Amino acid sequence: MIKPVGSDELQPLFVYDPDQHHELMREARELPSVMISSQAAGNAVMMGGGYFSPLKGYMRVEDAVSVARTMQTTDGLFFPVPVLCLLDRVDTIEGGRRIALRDPNMEGNPILAVMDVEDIETVSDEQMALMTGKVYCTDDMKHPGVAAFNRQGRFAVSGPIQVLHFSYFQDDFPDTFRTAVEIRHEIAERGWNQVVAFQTRNPMHLAHEELCHMAMDHLGCDGLVIHMLLGKLKAGDIPAPVRDAAIRKMVELYFQPNSAMVTGYGFDMLYAGPREAVLHAYFRQNMGATHFIIGRDHAGVGDYYGAFDAQTIFDEEVPQGALEIGIFKADHTAWSKKLGKVVMMREAPDHTKEDFVLLSGTKVRQMLSEGIAPPEEFSRPEVARILMDYYRSSK
Amino acid sequence: MIKPVGSDELQPLFVYDPDQHHELMREARELPSVMISSQAAGNAVMMGGGYFSPLKGYMRVEDAVSVARTMQTTDGLFFPVPVLCLLDRVDTIEGGRRIALRDPNMEGNPILAVMDVEDIETVSDEQMALMTGKVYCTDDMKHPGVAAFNRQGRFAVSGPIQVLHFSYFQDDFPDTFRTAVEIRHEIAERGWNQVVAFQTRNPMHLAHEELCHMAMDHLGCDGLVIHMLLGKLKAGDIPAPVRDAAIRKMVELYFQPNSAMVTGYGFDMLYAGPREAVLHAYFRQNMGATHFIIGRDHAGVGDYYGAFDAQTIFDEEVPQGALEIGIFKADHTAWSKKLGKVVMMREAPDHTKEDFVLLSGTKVRQMLSEGIAPPEEFSRPEVARILMDYYRSSK
Repeated sequence: MIKPVGSDELQPLFVYDPDQHHELMREARELPSVMISSQAAGNAVMMGGGYFSPLKGYMRVEDAVSVARTMQTTDGLFFPVPVLCLLDRVDTIEGGRRIALRDPNMEGNPILAVMDVEDIETVSDEQMALMTGKVYCTDDMKHPGVAAFNRQGRFAVSGPIQVLHFSYFQDDFPDTFRTAVEIRHEIAERGWNQVVAFQTRNPMHLAHEELCHMAMDHLGCDGLVIHMLLGKLKAGDIPAPVRDAAIRKMVELYFQPNSAMVTGYGFDMLYAGPREAVLHAYFRQNMGATHFIIGRDHAGVGDYYGAFDAQTIFDEEVPQGALEIGIFKADHTAWSKKLGKVVMMREAPDHTKEDFVLLSGTKVRQMLSEGIAPPEEFSRPEVARILMDYYRSSK
Repeated sequence: MIKPVGSDELQPLFVYDPDQHHELMREARELPSVMISSQAAGNAVMMGGGYFSPLKGYMRVEDAVSVARTMQTTDGLFFPVPVLCLLDRVDTIEGGRRIALRDPNMEGNPILAVMDVEDIETVSDEQMALMTGKVYCTDDMKHPGVAAFNRQGRFAVSGPIQVLHFSYFQDDFPDTFRTAVEIRHEIAERGWNQVVAFQTRNPMHLAHEELCHMAMDHLGCDGLVIHMLLGKLKAGDIPAPVRDAAIRKMVELYFQPNSAMVTGYGFDMLYAGPREAVLHAYFRQNMGATHFIIGRDHAGVGDYYGAFDAQTIFDEEVPQGALEIGIFKADHTAWSKKLGKVVMMREAPDHTKEDFVLLSGTKVRQMLSEGIAPPEEFSRPEVARILMDYYRSSK
């Protein structure tokens, strides 16, 4: 099985022994505590489940800046983005060597993790600007990732953590949320050797399904991990159970037995385009995938990134040998009327836009909500049925 | 795929839509609430995950008594044991049509479920005695199941529930705890057709491993679900992560790829012997197993049950057609020195005790803690290594 990044064994920071867990919870309730940012909480959940292994906790500013510049800490440890715990205020934890971190995303702000504080530093405007520019390739505060990063406080608390909870992901997505540990176990149990991971947060239409088949065929994969980004919904989003049911129906009907698993992980989108693509690949290696599909505009937003920047970064900026996972570089896929099948657009250079069956997200939602199934060149009818039933019932 | 008991679709009572879940949590915090018994909480977790489908909630006394007598409610719905919410006091919820149920097994007693109260009744001593006698086949308060059942209060609150949390099982066993919904999904994804379930709460030695292989071979199963009872540990028990690692190592080395999965469920032992065996089979059918292994003294304690009562009950007392799952009736298994392999004891009638490699639990624990590997006829060396490492490190 492919090794995790940077070590022989996955190093999840969740406290798996129930006795130790209870003891640590007892201790944590007596410790000075602080509510952390949503981003810091997301980092804790990812470190807890082994996705960010071998990180031990939040980075010092020097390391975060170094990572932003070169994707390496000052000690040369590879990591694609800064992993910081930035706080507005630290008066409740000043002097504390060991503190409890509270979850901003759950009612009552329960304890998420315990930290051994190594340092509390102030991040300068220059350092914030440098990290923002390197990671997001822009300083535009209209960029949602830039805004979220910079809305955090300027105190950077660093040190190793022990994770005690997976935030709201287990309550909200009990049947879909998986740690990297779990996915590794399941890949081993299934006996898969070559495993490609697919990132999504939406139901999958035919073009997505066929993209996965193409990647599996091309790479000789015996396994596909559909790995959904779980998180809070925006108005208009398809609810998680409906999305999951649509994806599971697709897997049931259109994938060979024991060739695909439907899973999810808890993290917020950074919209950091190329850098986020590297992060996505990083944690897919940690969960045991040998390959990862990266298409056009992966993890992008607006026009901040070139269409294929999230692919070229692997050749141009990721340090040689840092990642073992292979990247399946994809283009958009769509049904070709000329060829009578789904193709990758770049492989049909003679096609014009009119030669493809293309429907905007808005158009598809409108059709589904009117009970009109999209054409079979766009959606599997059984998948469309689940989505139409949802729209009809929610009226 | 095998259908769940009593309906075409599994009917989990967990609220899977995150929006509805949050709304219900908000509502629940304003409702009259009551802390329930550990048994009632266990029932809620099982109903939440679909294991007790198609039950909608806690039974009325009349139904519980009827179930205790005949394994059928007054409406003829099959269920093996009473599913009650027995409380000491109901003053906090008197008059409440809709109430919140609080978890006795977690710090702070968070809300576990919301209930539409249909009735609050008092259970008479005669009714308790009748249920106890029928379910546990004894009224001896030294029987741990009898004691736990009778230690509960005498107010039976009944009605449908909506489940909001899986108690401490997701915090304590995040990578092992599974709902029946999840296991059904995974069986479908793996493409298994004949699936046998194995109940355990301990590491598996060679005799257990071979029992699973025997069942799979005999039944023509392409899948095995190792389904661990998760729960609070007793002093001296192997911690969950060690037990899990030992079982996973066994699966990795001694089972074909895609032939076994390692999972767990959250419930307390009833020690109800035959009746519990029927319950165990019931919820294995709900999770998608076509067969279930029942050995000697299944779910028994002390000398309250005959060695094979938990097998004969399926022929003698379970209503015809109530369960579709098949029972693999097993005896103890052990290494035969005469035959040079693990055999089922009843199939070696010419053997004396001395012809088998038998070690008591106490003896095995002693050996492991002294760093002595049990003989290979008893334990796989790789499994023994994990257990010895644990004992050495815990000294």
